[in-house]
Amino acid sequence: MLQAHGTSTRIGAAMQPVMDVEDLEAFLDREFPQIHQDGRIYSVEAVGPGTARMRMRVGPRHIRPGGTLSGPTMMALADIALYVAILAHVGPVALAVTTNLSFNFLRKPEPHDLLAECRLLKLGTRLAVGEVNLLSDGAADPVCHATGTYSIPPRK
Amino acid sequence: MLQAHGTSTRIGAAMQPVMDVEDLEAFLDREFPQIHQDGRIYSVEAVGPGTARMRMRVGPRHIRPGGTLSGPTMMALADIALYVAILAHVGPVALAVTTNLSFNFLRKPEPHDLLAECRLLKLGTRLAVGEVNLLSDGAADPVCHATGTYSIPPRK
Amino acid sequence: MLQAHGTSTRIGAAMQPVMDVEDLEAFLDREFPQIHQDGRIYSVEAVGPGTARMRMRVGPRHIRPGGTLSGPTMMALADIALYVAILAHVGPVALAVTTNLSFNFLRKPEPHDLLAECRLLKLGTRLAVGEVNLLSDGAADPVCHATGTYSIPPRK
Amino acid sequence: MLQAHGTSTRIGAAMQPVMDVEDLEAFLDREFPQIHQDGRIYSVEAVGPGTARMRMRVGPRHIRPGGTLSGPTMMALADIALYVAILAHVGPVALAVTTNLSFNFLRKPEPHDLLAECRLLKLGTRLAVGEVNLLSDGAADPVCHATGTYSIPPRK
Repeated sequence: MLQAHGTSTRIGAAMQPVMDVEDLEAFLDREFPQIHQDGRIYSVEAVGPGTARMRMRVGPRHIRPGGTLSGPTMMALADIALYVAILAHVGPVALAVTTNLSFNFLRKPEPHDLLAECRLLKLGTRLAVGEVNLLSDGAADPVCHATGTYSIPPRK
Repeated sequence: MLQAHGTSTRIGAAMQPVMDVEDLEAFLDREFPQIHQDGRIYSVEAVGPGTARMRMRVGPRHIRPGGTLSGPTMMALADIALYVAILAHVGPVALAVTTNLSFNFLRKPEPHDLLAECRLLKLGTRLAVGEVNLLSDGAADPVCHATGTYSIPPRK
Repeated sequence: MLQAHGTSTRIGAAMQPVMDVEDLEAFLDREFPQIHQDGRIYSVEAVGPGTARMRMRVGPRHIRPGGTLSGPTMMALADIALYVAILAHVGPVALAVTTNLSFNFLRKPEPHDLLAECRLLKLGTRLAVGEVNLLSDGAADPVCHATGTYSIPPRK
Repeated sequence: MLQAHGTSTRIGAAMQPVMDVEDLEAFLDREFPQIHQDGRIYSVEAVGPGTARMRMRVGPRHIRPGGTLSGPTMMALADIALYVAILAHVGPVALAVTTNLSFNFLRKPEPHDLLAECRLLKLGTRLAVGEVNLLSDGAADPVCHATGTYSIPPRK
């Protein structure tokens, strides 16, 4: 029941990334080469305190009739970007596992690159929670907003 | 990222309750007397393998103009009922904490008793997930559907 | 399926409130007096382009053992605050109806006033979507994050 | 705010499909050929009152190290299956648009065919809501549970 909540080890301004863009790219290449199965479409653009931004280079595979992007294209980027945001703050030792993803689809995406702007809401010892806005490159309003919860395995 | 998931200790047909209706009522009275602050409105009606049903006796406090129930009335019942469903299967030792609740409001509730029919989707060592349909007593279609995730503290 | 999305009439910087704090307070008093059934605990503090902030004055009724707030207290405030944020931008003619609310409970709230900081993600002709961070007064990190979807009735 | 809800035209036992498996397969082939871009992996297996079941034939593209399935594989199937369940009950005239999808990832999927068992929770004139359990073929417990909301365009 809604009673009490676990201790958060790093919160708010105190959230500091421990991996930079190069560290994150190298980690993804080594541990998750399958995200590149359609070419190097995902890249990490920036990390900051409690934040991360990724870009997805859109190709013919992701475009739908009417010149929009498929839903799974957006959902895959949101999951990878939130994972990267957590990884950047927890470090390369832990394997976070997605337990919940909730999407609100807001507008029709353009057939352009898609940006994912993540913000961590909580970074606890067992669970991390973040939100992400997905934006068509060059547009001001998000096409999709998502929140995700990730289970962080016990560290030895 | 979506990779692998923790071990579930009890699943499907193997989910067996370890507390019965009387155990659960006694536990709630002892540990959460505050749920009775508006009278004894909540009661546990049934528990089964992976399931639980609760009833909320509706009073003037919960009724809104137009003869419907307030949203917080429904949300409070969903949270308590999912908590009870987990408790029934985990036993009175652990204090599960709500980490996520997602509601779809489907129909206008009648100003009658509200039933909560819960089903556990996962009962892991660290997280439990369940769904609940809320129904106006005597009606066939749910007024609200919710899913909830609860963090289960480590057992010593 | 994930294909195309309805036209949004007001987006981003173009979202301009059409009711101010006094308008909103007067509207709530007239149309929803039941929110004051435990005293005048809810107040609108600010509205801006695409945003609104509400305060909930916490009383003994909302406090739980251990000096924290009940979950329904948080959920009720989130729903009211998102409703007010939409109302501020749509005007007093329409009756928005909650269709979905999703909560991530992040930290244990303090037994202090609770603030709700809302941001609209979409304000379409049929659906409005917003997010809200709930914060204990004086604290930097949210205790709860929620997203909500509201159905906006056809205007005559 | 949580006040009142729109009229549902078909509810509960009264939900009757108006398209059968062959109708649905033909509609998908004609309108959404892009779902077959990796081969004919999706098939409609059954429709019933308020329900639909789809199967996804899993190939090397969907399998991840450790012999599990990728998250986007599961999310894409859930969205298509809910869309098909709604289509089966609304008929081929309307283009439903996904507005919300919420996923709880429950267990590690096996590298087998994935089944999607859908149930409609509401079929209104403007919004349809459904839930879906995703199961590895041959297993008893769902690997993922999702709920989805779809906006139904006005019919002329």
